[in-house]
Amino acid sequence: LEKPLEAQIMSLSRRSLLRLGAMLALAGSAAAEDDPLPSWNSTASKEAILKFVDAVTKKGTPNFIPADGRVALFDDDGTLWPELPHPAQIAFEFDCVMATASSHPDWNSTQPFKAAIDRDAVGLARQGQAALAKLLAATHESWTVDDYDSTAMSWLATTDNPHFKGSYGKLSYKPMQELIAHLRHNGFEIFIVSSNSAEFVRSRSQHAYGVSSEQIIAPSIRTKFSVVEGKAVLTRVAAVDGLVDDAGKPSAVFQRIGKAPIAFFGNADSDVTLLQWTMDPGKPRLGALLHHTDAVREFAYDRDSPFGKLDKGLREAPSNGWIVIDMKRDWDVVFP
Amino acid sequence: LEKPLEAQIMSLSRRSLLRLGAMLALAGSAAAEDDPLPSWNSTASKEAILKFVDAVTKKGTPNFIPADGRVALFDDDGTLWPELPHPAQIAFEFDCVMATASSHPDWNSTQPFKAAIDRDAVGLARQGQAALAKLLAATHESWTVDDYDSTAMSWLATTDNPHFKGSYGKLSYKPMQELIAHLRHNGFEIFIVSSNSAEFVRSRSQHAYGVSSEQIIAPSIRTKFSVVEGKAVLTRVAAVDGLVDDAGKPSAVFQRIGKAPIAFFGNADSDVTLLQWTMDPGKPRLGALLHHTDAVREFAYDRDSPFGKLDKGLREAPSNGWIVIDMKRDWDVVFP
Repeated sequence: LEKPLEAQIMSLSRRSLLRLGAMLALAGSAAAEDDPLPSWNSTASKEAILKFVDAVTKKGTPNFIPADGRVALFDDDGTLWPELPHPAQIAFEFDCVMATASSHPDWNSTQPFKAAIDRDAVGLARQGQAALAKLLAATHESWTVDDYDSTAMSWLATTDNPHFKGSYGKLSYKPMQELIAHLRHNGFEIFIVSSNSAEFVRSRSQHAYGVSSEQIIAPSIRTKFSVVEGKAVLTRVAAVDGLVDDAGKPSAVFQRIGKAPIAFFGNADSDVTLLQWTMDPGKPRLGALLHHTDAVREFAYDRDSPFGKLDKGLREAPSNGWIVIDMKRDWDVVFP
Repeated sequence: LEKPLEAQIMSLSRRSLLRLGAMLALAGSAAAEDDPLPSWNSTASKEAILKFVDAVTKKGTPNFIPADGRVALFDDDGTLWPELPHPAQIAFEFDCVMATASSHPDWNSTQPFKAAIDRDAVGLARQGQAALAKLLAATHESWTVDDYDSTAMSWLATTDNPHFKGSYGKLSYKPMQELIAHLRHNGFEIFIVSSNSAEFVRSRSQHAYGVSSEQIIAPSIRTKFSVVEGKAVLTRVAAVDGLVDDAGKPSAVFQRIGKAPIAFFGNADSDVTLLQWTMDPGKPRLGALLHHTDAVREFAYDRDSPFGKLDKGLREAPSNGWIVIDMKRDWDVVFP
C-alpha cells in the first residue's frame, strides 16, 4: 500500500496537503483524547473542566480563545503535590541547614535557623515567607546554579516524605498531571506560580509535569556573574528577589507574562487574589480550588491547617463561580 | 483523487500514519526553507548562522541540542530595530511627559523631566537607566495596564521616526525577522532582553517578531491589584522593578528562564556580559554583534555613539568567536 500512497502524496496540491494535515491532526487527537482525565471520577468537576476546554478551543463559537490567550496557571504546594505534613522545600531547607549547622553555632539560638534545627516547620511558617527566604539565602550562598540544581534534584529523588511511602519527587498528583497534559494538548501554555524558590520548583517541574524552567513564576535567589578561567559562571548570593504577599501575586504574574490567565488552579486562601484576577464576568474563565478531603489517601484539612489554610476561598467559591475540586469525591487515583 | 485517499488513510496502521506524518513534515519544511534568510547576502555571517542552526538540530550528531535547550536571546534597541537618532521608548516618554507637563510646572526645572521637555535624548541617557525609569513611573502612574498597552500600540503605529520615512512600528529589521522565524522553525524558543520597559517592548513584539509577551525579559512597572465593581484590575504605580546594570543581565535572564541561551544577538558593549555567558568553550554556541556600518540605509556608528556604544565588543569579538554582522556588507535589505 505504502509505495503508491507516497507517489500520490507527492503529486498533491498544497490545498490537498493542508486538508490531509488537518484530517490527520483530527484523527490523532481523537485517538489520544478518548478520556483525557482517566484519574478523575465522572463528577461535576471533571465535566466543568472538559466543558471549559472544549468551549475555548472550538473555532467559530462565541467563547473561542486563540492559542496565544490560552494561559493556564497552577499553584504548586497543595495543588500539584502535597504540602502536609510540611511543604517539601521546608524539609529540603532543614536538611541544608543541618548540613552546615556545625560551622554556625549561633544558629542554635537565632531564628529562623533555630526552627530549622528543631525541624519545626509550623514554627518556621509562622515567621512568614521572609524566614524561609532567609534560610535559602544563607544555606546556598556562593553555590553555582548548576550545583544547586543537581543537589535539589538528587534530594527529591532520594529523600522519603515521612508520611507517604516513597520520595518527595514521586508525590505529584496524577489527576493534575493529566489535566496539565490535556490543557497543553489543547494549545494552552502552562505556568506554575509558587512562594517557594523558582530554582526549587524547576528542579522537578519538567520531569513531573513537562513544565519548562521558563514557565515557573516564583521568588528567586539572586546570582552574581563572573568569568572564571574563560568560562562564565553564575554564583548564588545571599539575597532573594521577587517575594510578594498574596495581594501582590497577580502583579507578579503580570510582570512575568504580560497577560492574565484564563484558567487558574489553587487550593488555599492565599490563592484568592489569583482566582479573582482570572475570572472575568461574561467571559469563559475557569477558577478552581482543590479541597483536601481525603484523610485516607492524602489528608483532610482546610480552615485550621497551618499550611494551605482554606476558609475564605470555600465560602466565596459558590457566588464567584469557582469550582471546588473535592479530592475524595472527584479523584479516582491520587498518586501515580 | 481525494475520496479514495481519505479511505486509504483511515485504514492505515499507526506506524504508517507516523511515517506519513514525518514525510509531510519533511516536504513542508523543504518547501519553506528554500532560503530561510533571503534578506541576508551570501557572506560569512549568514553561513555561520545557518551552519550553527543546522549543527544543533541534526539528531545523532555530536553538536545536537534537544529542543528544550534551544534558547535564542535577542537584545532589542539597535539589534532588532534602530536606536538612532534616539531609542523609540525615549521618544515615547518625551511625548508622554509633554502630554501632562502643563500640570507639573516643577518639571521645567527638575531632572529627568527637564531633559524630556527639552527633547534632549542624549542628556537623558547620560543620567543613566534610572532616569528613564523615573519618567515612565511618573507619566503612567494610576493607568490600568490595558490603557498603557493601547496607548503605546497606537503611538507606535502613528508616530513617525524623524530620520526614517514611516512610523516607529514599521522599522523592524527584516533580516532579523527572518532570522527569528528561521530559529523558531527549528525548534528554538525566542526571548528578547531589553533595558526598556517590558510593557513597551510587548506592545510590538508579537506583531513585529511573533514573540509573545511572556518571552520579554525587561524591567517592568509595578502594579497594584484591586477589585472594582466585581472586576479585578491592575493599576500602575510609580515604581519600576528589575532594573539591572550590564553585569546583572545574565543573572536577570537566568532568574526568568532558569537556563542559559545557546545563541545571543546584540549590538553594543552593554551586551558583552550576555555574549560571555552564552559562549561555552567546546560546545555549539552562537554569539553575534550587529555592527551598524550603513550610513546610507540606516546609520554608521560604534565607539563614539551616545546610544549603543560598541568598542570593547568589536575588540574582543575575534578572540572569543563572536560573529560581527556588518549591516552594509551582510544585509541585502534592511527594512521590510
